[in-house]
Amino acid sequence: MENFSADTRRIALDAMGGDMGPTEVVAALQLALREFSDLCPVTIVGNEAELTPLLQQANLLDHPKVALLHASEVITMGDEVMTAIKRKRDSSMIKAIELVKNGEARAVVSSGNTKILVSAGTLKLRTLAGVERPALSPVIPREGGHFILIDAGANPDARVTHLVHNAILGSHYAQLELGVERPRVGLLTIGTEEGKGNSLINGTHESLKALGDLVNYVGPVEGFQVFFDHVDVIVCDGFTGNICLKSWESLSKFFRNELKAQMLSTPVRRLGGLLAKGAFTGLRHRIQPERYGGAPLLGLRGTVLKAHGSANRYALMNAIGDASEFIRVDFTSRIESDIERANKILRPEPADAKTP
Amino acid sequence: MENFSADTRRIALDAMGGDMGPTEVVAALQLALREFSDLCPVTIVGNEAELTPLLQQANLLDHPKVALLHASEVITMGDEVMTAIKRKRDSSMIKAIELVKNGEARAVVSSGNTKILVSAGTLKLRTLAGVERPALSPVIPREGGHFILIDAGANPDARVTHLVHNAILGSHYAQLELGVERPRVGLLTIGTEEGKGNSLINGTHESLKALGDLVNYVGPVEGFQVFFDHVDVIVCDGFTGNICLKSWESLSKFFRNELKAQMLSTPVRRLGGLLAKGAFTGLRHRIQPERYGGAPLLGLRGTVLKAHGSANRYALMNAIGDASEFIRVDFTSRIESDIERANKILRPEPADAKTP
Repeated sequence: MENFSADTRRIALDAMGGDMGPTEVVAALQLALREFSDLCPVTIVGNEAELTPLLQQANLLDHPKVALLHASEVITMGDEVMTAIKRKRDSSMIKAIELVKNGEARAVVSSGNTKILVSAGTLKLRTLAGVERPALSPVIPREGGHFILIDAGANPDARVTHLVHNAILGSHYAQLELGVERPRVGLLTIGTEEGKGNSLINGTHESLKALGDLVNYVGPVEGFQVFFDHVDVIVCDGFTGNICLKSWESLSKFFRNELKAQMLSTPVRRLGGLLAKGAFTGLRHRIQPERYGGAPLLGLRGTVLKAHGSANRYALMNAIGDASEFIRVDFTSRIESDIERANKILRPEPADAKTP
Repeated sequence: MENFSADTRRIALDAMGGDMGPTEVVAALQLALREFSDLCPVTIVGNEAELTPLLQQANLLDHPKVALLHASEVITMGDEVMTAIKRKRDSSMIKAIELVKNGEARAVVSSGNTKILVSAGTLKLRTLAGVERPALSPVIPREGGHFILIDAGANPDARVTHLVHNAILGSHYAQLELGVERPRVGLLTIGTEEGKGNSLINGTHESLKALGDLVNYVGPVEGFQVFFDHVDVIVCDGFTGNICLKSWESLSKFFRNELKAQMLSTPVRRLGGLLAKGAFTGLRHRIQPERYGGAPLLGLRGTVLKAHGSANRYALMNAIGDASEFIRVDFTSRIESDIERANKILRPEPADAKTP
């Protein structure tokens, strides 16, 4: 096992936060090392006594790309945000974030408590120059592909500037994650006619139009267009985004349960279901893709990837792979110049403003 | 055909606004008269030259419960709100609303342009005493039953008072439509811990708690709980509600398309799909129920029922039946005393406020 300060292009992996426990995290790390040949080195953070035998079993204890950092505490789903950040300094999540803060790593991957990860990430890593608030941006399946929802809950009381920054952050992320050269960016609202949203939406709409070629802004997007091939990035405030994301997950589960109940209700349907089993598996893979294991918290001086609390080893493996990719392309520094340009357009220098 | 001013307990039916045209509306009326023996009389409003042969074919021209009111114009989906209300005074929708305004009917049913129906209904009928804004409240299927979403888009820039009124309106509607004696009311937000929403949510949460037994308020509801058996009424602002409702519809379509594509992709799956056909029909009926053909615009001095633009005859039939039920139970007047009590709790009399 190498000295984890030797290469700062490394990933800090919180082993303790998820519902599935450290066994699943170690399995994910093993898969990631196998799957991604150029994976950045990883420091796995968590209880040494629990992790050592798991790493040994997985033949990772002496792996050149794996380091272990002991953390005696665990942040749970029931912890209060500020109490956890202040008191649980020796928790795996906080210590993983500290590694990035101290320059010993560049990305954190955690499936722990979202609110605490967002708050601790923001407080400790701070936002990029010119960015006021970070944004959580999951990848969601839709007709013919995927879109990025930004913000899914990091910033519920958003202002126009925040939404404009979300458009830039989401655009860069879509290039990286979806491989779209010029991602179409839409603003989530309730009417596609100009001036038909609320004041936040109207202000953001005008500002996005003013950005010119900085963002490929295609205009407002209404709810009924979300799951069809209209845009690659959907910009919204964190309140709307979080309710949408969570209610979509809830609706998906409801569908699955209802369909299952319908399929099992007669012997003929059960036989039909058996024959068509592959279709349901195919749909499940399409709708809840493990390919996108983590939603990044964009806009910080460092990468924070939030994996779903119930992320299994494959989802986590992909989150680890994504973190490595963020580091490889130096994602955060690519954004700063665009944010600076946008801020100049949105808030011209005082000298300009005073010109008669 | 009777004189339509003889009984004010009647329904004004806009025959022209929907995507399916007047043929479907006349068919719906015919079905409603057959299905609901105590249906209130109906004035069908639209182009006489088009409607007369349709009514004749349906044997409704001399029906004792059917009257026809000519309207020369039609409001389309592309019409501007204020222009339509000012200029298209002889449109079927505006004339139907005028019947209620003039006391010649008590309920309007229309599947026309939602924005114009909401605006014209509000301007012409005005809100109930103590109510500031109306709210659109569709019925949505969920695990084990249905819930009412209020507001689905009438009032995108909502304040605390509006959301509190939505709780009362939605509660009464759930009693009528879902048959629940003491409907559980929840406030849609992003965190179930107190004080974890935005300022609108926090203020509404406190006010709802202060209402005591006026509303069976069970607390905040998060997105992930929406489609499970937590509450009967979900209160939210019209911006969030509209985006949710429309994106849920969009997600349902996406699911259906994806599942269909999966089912048709191999011969074995196709056979399975054929055997299990009943399950898909069952799911469709469960998810897109025509039983709830119209979403009422609650809080006005008169009933306005908005049917989906693409509502077929069965959905419209049920909207007509619902309108009759609203009239029968004198729905609007039942609400005013509760609103008055709520307003006294929220805004005590100046005399009380000055008491040291």
